[in-house]
Amino acid sequence: MLISKIITIGDEILIGQVTNTNASFISEKLYSIGIPVSRVVTIEDTEEALINELDDSVKNFNVTIITGGLGPTHDDVTKPTLVKYFKDELISDEKVLEHVKSIFKNRNVEMPPVNYQQAMVPKNSKVIFNVNGTAPGIWIEKNNKVIIALPGVPFEMKEMMKSKVIPMLAEKFSDDIKYVLKSKTILTTGIGESNLAELIGDVKPIIGNNKLAFLPSLYGVRLRIDVKGESINDTNNKIEEIENKLRAKIDEYIFGTDEDLPEKIVGDLLLQKNLTLAVAESCTGGLISSKITDISGSSKYFLGEICSYSNNSKFNILGVKEDTLKKYGAVSEETALEMAINVRQKFNADIGISTTGIAGPTGGTNEKPVGLVWVGLSDGSRTFAMKFMFGNNRERTKIRATYMAFGILRNHLKIFY
Amino acid sequence: MLISKIITIGDEILIGQVTNTNASFISEKLYSIGIPVSRVVTIEDTEEALINELDDSVKNFNVTIITGGLGPTHDDVTKPTLVKYFKDELISDEKVLEHVKSIFKNRNVEMPPVNYQQAMVPKNSKVIFNVNGTAPGIWIEKNNKVIIALPGVPFEMKEMMKSKVIPMLAEKFSDDIKYVLKSKTILTTGIGESNLAELIGDVKPIIGNNKLAFLPSLYGVRLRIDVKGESINDTNNKIEEIENKLRAKIDEYIFGTDEDLPEKIVGDLLLQKNLTLAVAESCTGGLISSKITDISGSSKYFLGEICSYSNNSKFNILGVKEDTLKKYGAVSEETALEMAINVRQKFNADIGISTTGIAGPTGGTNEKPVGLVWVGLSDGSRTFAMKFMFGNNRERTKIRATYMAFGILRNHLKIFY
Repeated sequence: MLISKIITIGDEILIGQVTNTNASFISEKLYSIGIPVSRVVTIEDTEEALINELDDSVKNFNVTIITGGLGPTHDDVTKPTLVKYFKDELISDEKVLEHVKSIFKNRNVEMPPVNYQQAMVPKNSKVIFNVNGTAPGIWIEKNNKVIIALPGVPFEMKEMMKSKVIPMLAEKFSDDIKYVLKSKTILTTGIGESNLAELIGDVKPIIGNNKLAFLPSLYGVRLRIDVKGESINDTNNKIEEIENKLRAKIDEYIFGTDEDLPEKIVGDLLLQKNLTLAVAESCTGGLISSKITDISGSSKYFLGEICSYSNNSKFNILGVKEDTLKKYGAVSEETALEMAINVRQKFNADIGISTTGIAGPTGGTNEKPVGLVWVGLSDGSRTFAMKFMFGNNRERTKIRATYMAFGILRNHLKIFY
Repeated sequence: MLISKIITIGDEILIGQVTNTNASFISEKLYSIGIPVSRVVTIEDTEEALINELDDSVKNFNVTIITGGLGPTHDDVTKPTLVKYFKDELISDEKVLEHVKSIFKNRNVEMPPVNYQQAMVPKNSKVIFNVNGTAPGIWIEKNNKVIIALPGVPFEMKEMMKSKVIPMLAEKFSDDIKYVLKSKTILTTGIGESNLAELIGDVKPIIGNNKLAFLPSLYGVRLRIDVKGESINDTNNKIEEIENKLRAKIDEYIFGTDEDLPEKIVGDLLLQKNLTLAVAESCTGGLISSKITDISGSSKYFLGEICSYSNNSKFNILGVKEDTLKKYGAVSEETALEMAINVRQKFNADIGISTTGIAGPTGGTNEKPVGLVWVGLSDGSRTFAMKFMFGNNRERTKIRATYMAFGILRNHLKIFY
C-alpha cells in the first residue's frame, strides 16, 4: 500500500496562533487518490529539524508533502535544506522569473531584488507552477520516493494541490494506486430523516457496495454519497448513477448539491419566474430577510420584510386582527396565515411568507412548548401554514425555521409556477 | 529552556475529516506558561507508532501531551501502550469509577460493563479528573520528564488543560519557567484605527515593555494587550494597569473585552435603562434585527423592525416622503433621518435606528459609491445620521454597518440616558 506524510513548517502553528488547516486539506486529497497520510508532523523552521524528517520520509513514505518555509528571506529554510540534503544546486527558472516579475508589474511595484531568489529551483527537480503567488512548488524524486515542497499560504497551496500535485501523483503512481475515492452531497429540505429514508426505501439496489450517509443538519437532511472506484472516471460514473437513482425517488426535496445555498436557489427561482417576495418574521427575528439579502442582486425580487417582534406590532404594523391574536395567540396557524397574507399585500408582492414561534429558551407552555414554529405562505390564490417543532436551542430554532421557510418557498415555486 | 511536544492520535485527522484544533489550543496554553511546543505530530492509533514517539519524548522534551485514544474499546491504544512502555500496571480508581457511574445514572442509562475500563489508571500516575466525560487524564513522570494523556474530545480536553494541567505544570516547573504570557482584548466601536491611535497618543508610558496591537475588525478596532511577566499574578497586574490607562483615554469607545458581544451589550443597556427599540433597515437587510434577536430575552426591549428593501416600501410602509426620496435619493442623510423617526413612531418605541446604503457589488455611482452607508438614530428629542464608507464587499458592508449601528446606539445610551 502507498502511504504519505505531511511536514508542516511554521512557528505560528507551534505557538497556537494558527490552526493547521493545510494538513487536513492535503490529507483529504491524498486519501481520495489512494495514498493515505499516516503521519503529520509540525516542526520549527530549522535545517536540523527538517533534515531529521527528510531521513524518515525517504526511508518510510512513498510521498511527502512539505508546506511552508519557501519564502525569499533567510528564515525560509525549505529550499536550501532540500538542496543540501539531495546534494543538488539552485538554478534560475526563466518561466518562474517572468511570472514573479509580472506579479510585481501588475501591482505597479518595483520588484525587490530578493525576489530573484524565488525563481531559483533545485536543478534536479520539477517545478510546480504557482499561479497565485511568487514561490514555486518543488517536486523531487529519489528511489521512487516523491518529496514535494509547497508554499504555506492556503490559497496558493490549495490551487497547486488540486490542479497539479494530485493529477501528477495519480499519474506517477497509476500502476500502484489501488483505489480512488469521491463523495458528493445531495442537499434536501422540507422533509425529515425518517420520511426521507422511507421514500428512498432499500438502499442496496441504489448504492451497491458504496456508501450513503444521512446527515441531518440545521438546513435539512444532507445525503452524502461515498464511492470507491478504480479511476477518477469510474468514481464519477458511479456517483452519477447513484444520484440519478436518488433523484428518481426524492427529486422534489432536493434543492441542490455540495456547496449550494438555499437562499441563492430560491432567489434564482424568483428571478427566473419574475416574481417578488415579502416576508413577515417573528421568531426568526430578521434572519430570513438577512439571508435573502446576502445574495447580490436580491433587490430584483425581494421587496422587504417586517419583523413584528412584539404583539402590538403584529396588530399595529402587520394588521393581524386583534381578535385573532386574542383567540388563537401570536404563535398560531391563524396568526401565521394573516401575517403572510398581510405582508404580501402591504409590500404589493407576488408571494408573502411568515414565521411565528417560540424560540426560547423561556416563554414556552405545555400547549405551546419552546421550539414550536408556524411557517406561512400566501400567493394570492393559495394560503397555508405548516407547523414544526425545532427543539429548545434558540439559535438553532431561528436557523432551522429560516431554512424550512426557504424549503417551503422553493417547493411552492417548483409546483405552482 | 523548557520545551514541549504534542502527540495527536486519530485517524479522522489523518484522512482529513477533522482539523487538529486541539493542537493549536494546547500550543497556545503551553506557550503562555513558558513551555513552548516545538513539535506536533499526528500518528495512527497503533502501539508501534506511539512507542516510537514516546522514545523521542522521554529523550528530548520536558513535557509531552498526548490527545486521543483514551476510550474504553480495543481501538484505544493510549492507556495500554503507556502501561507497557513505562512497565506499570492498571488499577481501578474509586473516585473515577464513582464519577463514571454517576454520568450514566444521570442519563438514566445502565452503565455498559466496558466502562469499568475507564476507571482503570496506571498505578504510578496521577489522575487528571475529567468533569465532562468518562475518560480520566493521566500524568506520568519519568526522569523529570512529564507525559500527559488527555481525551481527544475538545470540550473535555480544554477544560482539563485550563483548570488542571496548566496550573499543575506551572507549579511543577515553577523554578525553571522563565516567563508567563497573557493577553486581553479591549473591544472598541464607533472610531477608526487612526483616530483611536491619536487619542491614545504615545503608547510607551502606557505599555512599557509590553505589546499593544491595533486589530481592525468588522466589529470595530480591537486592542490586544500582550504582557510577559514572571508569574500569573505579575501578568494579571500588568494587564490591569494597562487597561486602566487605556480606559482613562478612550473609555467612551470601549464596549467590552475579549468575547463580549455588541448585541448583548446594547441589549443589557436598553433593559437596564428600561427603553425600547425599533429598527428600519435597508442595506443591512435584516441583519441588525437578527443579531438583536439572537439574544435571549430581547423581546423585553426590542419591538420590531422594518426592512424596506425597495424604494416603494420606504415610501409605502415606512412613510418616507416621496419628495425626500426624489430630491435626495434612498441613500441619503435625509432618508436615514426619516426612516429612524418613522420607525420609532410606528412601533411606538423609545429609540429608532436606521440604515440605508449601497451594499454592492453593483449599484454604485461616482457620487454614491458602493460601500456608502448612512446610519440614523432618533429618540424623540434628538435625531441624527452619520455617514460611513465600508468598501466594496457586500457581506462585510452589511456586518460593518450593523456593528456601527450598535456602537452608535451604545454611545447614545451611555451619554443621554
